[in-house]
Formats: sequence, structure tokens, C-alpha cells
Amino acid sequence: MTPDPARFLSDLHHLRSFGAAGHGVMRRAFSEPDVAAREWLVAQIEAIGLTAHVDPAGNVFGLAKGRSLLIGSHSDTQPEGGWLDGAYGVIAALEIARAAVEAGGPAISMVSFQDEEGRFGALTGSDLWAGRTTLAEADGFAATDGLTFGQARQGLAHLMQEDFVDPARFTGFLEMHIEQGPVLDQVGESVGVVTSIVGLRQIQVTVTGQQNHAGTTPMAMRQDAFQGAARIAGLLNERFANVVTPQTVWTIGHMQLHPNASSIVPGRAVFTIQWRDGDADRLDRMERVIDEVLTDVAAETGMQVEADRLRHDLTPVPMDEGMQAALRAAAEVHAPGRWRSMPSGALHDASNVSHLMPVGMLFVPSIGGISHDFAEDTGEADLVTGLKVLAAAADALAPR
Amino acid sequence: MTPDPARFLSDLHHLRSFGAAGHGVMRRAFSEPDVAAREWLVAQIEAIGLTAHVDPAGNVFGLAKGRSLLIGSHSDTQPEGGWLDGAYGVIAALEIARAAVEAGGPAISMVSFQDEEGRFGALTGSDLWAGRTTLAEADGFAATDGLTFGQARQGLAHLMQEDFVDPARFTGFLEMHIEQGPVLDQVGESVGVVTSIVGLRQIQVTVTGQQNHAGTTPMAMRQDAFQGAARIAGLLNERFANVVTPQTVWTIGHMQLHPNASSIVPGRAVFTIQWRDGDADRLDRMERVIDEVLTDVAAETGMQVEADRLRHDLTPVPMDEGMQAALRAAAEVHAPGRWRSMPSGALHDASNVSHLMPVGMLFVPSIGGISHDFAEDTGEADLVTGLKVLAAAADALAPR
Repeated sequence: MTPDPARFLSDLHHLRSFGAAGHGVMRRAFSEPDVAAREWLVAQIEAIGLTAHVDPAGNVFGLAKGRSLLIGSHSDTQPEGGWLDGAYGVIAALEIARAAVEAGGPAISMVSFQDEEGRFGALTGSDLWAGRTTLAEADGFAATDGLTFGQARQGLAHLMQEDFVDPARFTGFLEMHIEQGPVLDQVGESVGVVTSIVGLRQIQVTVTGQQNHAGTTPMAMRQDAFQGAARIAGLLNERFANVVTPQTVWTIGHMQLHPNASSIVPGRAVFTIQWRDGDADRLDRMERVIDEVLTDVAAETGMQVEADRLRHDLTPVPMDEGMQAALRAAAEVHAPGRWRSMPSGALHDASNVSHLMPVGMLFVPSIGGISHDFAEDTGEADLVTGLKVLAAAADALAPR
Repeated sequence: MTPDPARFLSDLHHLRSFGAAGHGVMRRAFSEPDVAAREWLVAQIEAIGLTAHVDPAGNVFGLAKGRSLLIGSHSDTQPEGGWLDGAYGVIAALEIARAAVEAGGPAISMVSFQDEEGRFGALTGSDLWAGRTTLAEADGFAATDGLTFGQARQGLAHLMQEDFVDPARFTGFLEMHIEQGPVLDQVGESVGVVTSIVGLRQIQVTVTGQQNHAGTTPMAMRQDAFQGAARIAGLLNERFANVVTPQTVWTIGHMQLHPNASSIVPGRAVFTIQWRDGDADRLDRMERVIDEVLTDVAAETGMQVEADRLRHDLTPVPMDEGMQAALRAAAEVHAPGRWRSMPSGALHDASNVSHLMPVGMLFVPSIGGISHDFAEDTGEADLVTGLKVLAAAADALAPR
């Protein structure tokens, strides 16, 4: 089977027109442009000769007959999103499924999941399909404007079927996506074969000191919550050094001081510590380092240091070995010497789908590492290379 | 002359009744309780036989005949203030002026300045008297609720005179105040003779890094603005060590990260650095350390680090040597071994008055260092000791 790069790029730019905003796209889940884009996808699926199935979550499937390999991603965007994000993987799946039909095989189905970008939940469409959330729960999820998922999905009621697609139809799932990070772009490579989607843990730390006048309180009598937070940040950098790999990341991205006034010694600092790695054992070891640092800073400063888990942990999701091997082989054919194996630092629908079947993922570069921004882009040659690698791997993996 | 502790405490509790709120007081400048309190003060002044003079700023003077020593503070409070703050110094001045009249000398006048707590400006009443702001400027100052100083001061129009009191009437100014810090309380002493009101400098620092996805951006490729800010805080602590005294303070009290989200590497951190000391040369040396630290962190991290002055510097204000000597001598009589010389870390009306005449200040302990809070308090024995020390020093300093 031979995907057609020109047809693929044409479709990719057509999808971009739904919600186009300058270089970027505004196509949140169940917005008018999103509904229009899904109607257009259904028409493309039917034109290929696949069976369209829009499930109660708004996920749009194009189903081959019998057992098949599923390929896809998501076509909803952030409020001010890039034009490629999930759209790239959806249109690549459409083109490969079409090429497979034209070639008389193999059996390839496609999907565009809904609300990956979390207007209502987080990865809501694949979450529902994987049975990790019930429709009754999801219907209560509210967007920041108050609209619920239950109300919003009525916008696709005219296309929806009552049932979800049976996952047993599929032998596995391949997702292609832009990297959304700087690695491939900086090293000048075209393709990344994903080894795992990293796990994530996050705590909220509260340092409670003593709010005081910033003029009348001598340094030796202070319990300054910001100084405690800065000390924690410094010690984490030192003590993580022996635990992490170059792929491990940790972030203090949110901080709130109280009362947050220039003339008052901060009495309280609340901040998040988030850490990600592909290895659950390493996440554990990092958590022990964090616990020690918090305990040590509390002892050293006399302040109260408390940690609360903010959300469910995300367990690392290893990609299927056979699928990685097929992607590596295809990458070496179509991008010899210009690909690498790498973890995915971002979460993807493939995480949810991994609970149903083997999954594999492929990355192409994000120029400057930019994503979730109108400026998001990838060179056209890389977009086409990704399509060819994905098609070759799908050809090797899909049932006949 | 002999001040009467019982009469003094009675008056102090009477002033407390204007705007009383539990243990504390709510008596903002020109609020109904503040106007009522100033009407009451005028009545007390006239009952003593001094001449009341309410100036256009709302400052209430009780004037002795001829050249006199001025004593006082302010009777407005924070929105949720303590009962002593400036009120203590105002009622002590009232009692000492009364005792002087009763004794037939020396010549002592008193004052309650207006809006020391900055409902409209900052130390607005003494600022206007010292000619550091014009009435036309001050009339435009607006409270957070939109009320202007010009509108608010109409509340005292029925008592106001058109002119300010001529500062040349006074040989000097003594202000007694609660410490508003923990030092005297922690060391168990009753009186502090103020050596200087510390100077204050403040800058706002902006660290500009690169906003990135907290999962997909390897640590080595990050420009994390919070990490830059934490590094600056740590280096300041190290490098100030050789420059400061135990009385020097510095504070990072306000910080804002952007976009301040747990899953995003902060692209920008904006925070204040404020430092205070009684010695202008030391303030200079600290500023050079800060400049070096900012330059070094910019070089080390590749991030942009900019500093802006947020407000006018406050120059350290040394207290008059003769007045300090009189206060020390009086302290040794009425609180032998239980007093110390110390700087004032907080700003006071005496700073403004120092531009007009020699000034001196006396502190009594704040229990737990607490001020600007309903819980603010001082032991009654210390309140009386302060009164006696102040009266003895005034007796020695005032013209006859």
C-alpha cells in the first residue's frame, strides 16, 4: 500500500480550515468547528468505503471489516491551538486507511478521539472508550463556561450511535503525533519511536511559617515561607542528581505566597512539585527524595511543611515491543540515521487505549518545541516522512 | 511634672472605644470613628487649656503658648488594627502635656497626625505638614474604595483651620510607639531608645525564561524562571552574610509566576526584593551585591534578569543625638537595665517630621511582635514605664 503525500497534505490543510485562526486553530471539543470537522471526517470515511461509527463520546471511527489495526489520534484542539497537534495523526490515519483500501489490504481502521485537550475532562473520549470513566460521570464534567459534557455532546447527536465500538475488533493501536517538545528539532532528526509515555506524580506543598512585618522582624526571628520554598527547590536539584536520567523532569510551576506583599514576611507558601519519568521505580525513588527534603527543611527551619496529593498518579505506559520494532524498522527505511527512540513526556490517547490493546507511538519534530500555540509547526518534509514510516509499520503490523 | 498613670490608661481605653472591634480597633483615617475620636481629642485639648488646631490635613494639634516641645503620633488605624499602634503615643502626649500645664511648665504641645496608616497616601498627614506633598496632590489620592483624600477630609471641615501650624513653634519632636516587632518582648526589656528609622530600598525583579511544557522539555533545555528566582534568593542569603548586621533585613515578599500552572515550566517570574538598614552605605553595599547576583544568575542560566525600582527609596533617618541622650538617661531612671538602643524597622511620622526639626523616638514592647492585628497588645506595666520615660525626657528637653 502506498499513501499519497499530496492527498494527505491536502486533507490536513482542509481539516485546518475548521476553526482556522491565523497560523493556528481554535477547535475545542464540541465547538461548532469541531462538530463540522467531525461531520467532514465521517464523509471522508464513507467515501473511502469504511464504516463510520460515532460513539456516544463523540469519538469518530472509520471501521474496516473484520479484525483490523486501529490508527488515529484526536482532532479537537486547545482554545488557541496549533494546526497539527492531534490533527496530524488523524489525517495520517485517514490517508493510510484509504491507501490500504485502495491496495486491497491490510485491514486498517482509523479514529479521531474527542476532548483529548480536556475542555471537559482530560482525554475524555478515549477515557470513556477504555471504560475508565462512565458516561454518567462524564456527562457531569463542566467546561469553565459551565457547559457540561452531557449538554455538549448533543451537538453530534445526529451522527451518534448508542454503543461504543467493541475494542476486540482491533489487534492494536498506533498513534502518530507531533513531539510537542524540543528534542527532535534540536538534534535535527525526523522521527521519534516512543518507548513509553512517562508517568506523572504531583504534590501540593504548603510551607507554613510566620507572617511578620518585613521591617521590624530580625532575620534570626523569621519563619519565612518563601525562603523555605526556595530552599526546598535548591535541595531537590542537588539530591535528584543521583537519581534521575536525562529524560527525567521535575517542575515547580505553580506558587502562591500569602499575603504576597513586598513589605510582609510571607507566612505561607503553597506550590506544586510535579515529576515525570518512564520508570515507576524511579518515580518512587524521587518521591522518597522529596519526602526527605521536606522533612529536612521542616527540621532546619522550624516551619510546618505539608504535602498533599493533588490528583491521581499517572502510571508510566510502556509501548508494545513488537510495535516499537516495526516502527524502528520502518524509520530506518524512510529516515535512515535520522530517528531515535525516546519517551513521550506528554500524555496521549494511547495511554488510555493501552488498557484495551497493544499500543505504539511515533513522533515528528515540533519546530522550536512549540505546541498548544498558534505558532506550532513542523516542516512539510518531516510530516511526509512520518506518514511513510507510520504506513510502513502499519503495513507490517495490520492483519490481512 | 508628674503624669498620672491612671488618668493616662483611662484616656487610652476611651480612645480605644472609637471603632472598637473585639480586642482591636477599626478606625481608618476620616472614617466615622476617626472623626469622632478627633472631635474628642479637640475637647480634651481645650479642657487642658491648650489651643486646638486642626490643620487642612486633619492633623490635630494641642498647642502650648510660645516655643514648645512637640510630642505625639497618630490615632488612625489599619482597617483591622490594634488598639495601641499610634494611639499609645497620642494619649501619652496628651497626658504629658496636661501634666506640664498642671505643673506650670515646661512648654509641651501634642499632635495626632492623620492617615499615618496610608488609607490614602502613606503618612499623609505628616507628609503634608512637612511640605513633602502638596494639598492639591494629596486631594487626588484615592482609597481602594475610590474615595479621595479631598472628599474624605470634608468630614473634619467643621473643625479645620485653613493654615498649617508653623513648625518654627517647636524645638523638637518626640514620638513614642509600640515596637511592632519581637525584639523587646523576646529579650524581656521594657523600653527601646530608637537610634534611627531604617532606610528602605526595593526593586522588582523580572526573570524571563522560556515557557514550556513540563513533560516534554528536558531539564537541560529549560529556562525555568522560578528556578532562576530561587537561585537568586539562595545567592543573596550567601553573599549578604559578609555585608549585614543583625539589624539588617531583606525580604522577598511578593512573587508572581507566569503562567503559574503546575504542568508548565514558568516562563516569567516577577518578584520584589526589599532591604532595610539604618546605614545608607550598607544599603549601597547590599545593592551592589544584588546587582552582582542578578548579573551572575543571568549569565549562569542564559535568562534575562531585569530590575526596576518600584518606589522612592526611603533614606535612613538618624534620631537626634541630644534627644537620644535624654531618652537614655530617663530610661535608666525608670527602667534600669531593662532598656536598649535599637533601630526602628518600621516607618513613622517622625521620619517626615525630621525634615522640620530634631526628632527622637521611644519604643515599648509588642507582645509576640504582633501589630496591625486585633491581637496587638503590650503589658500595662510597660505602657506606664514608657509614659514615665517619655515624660522625664520631655521634662529635660522642653523649653521653659
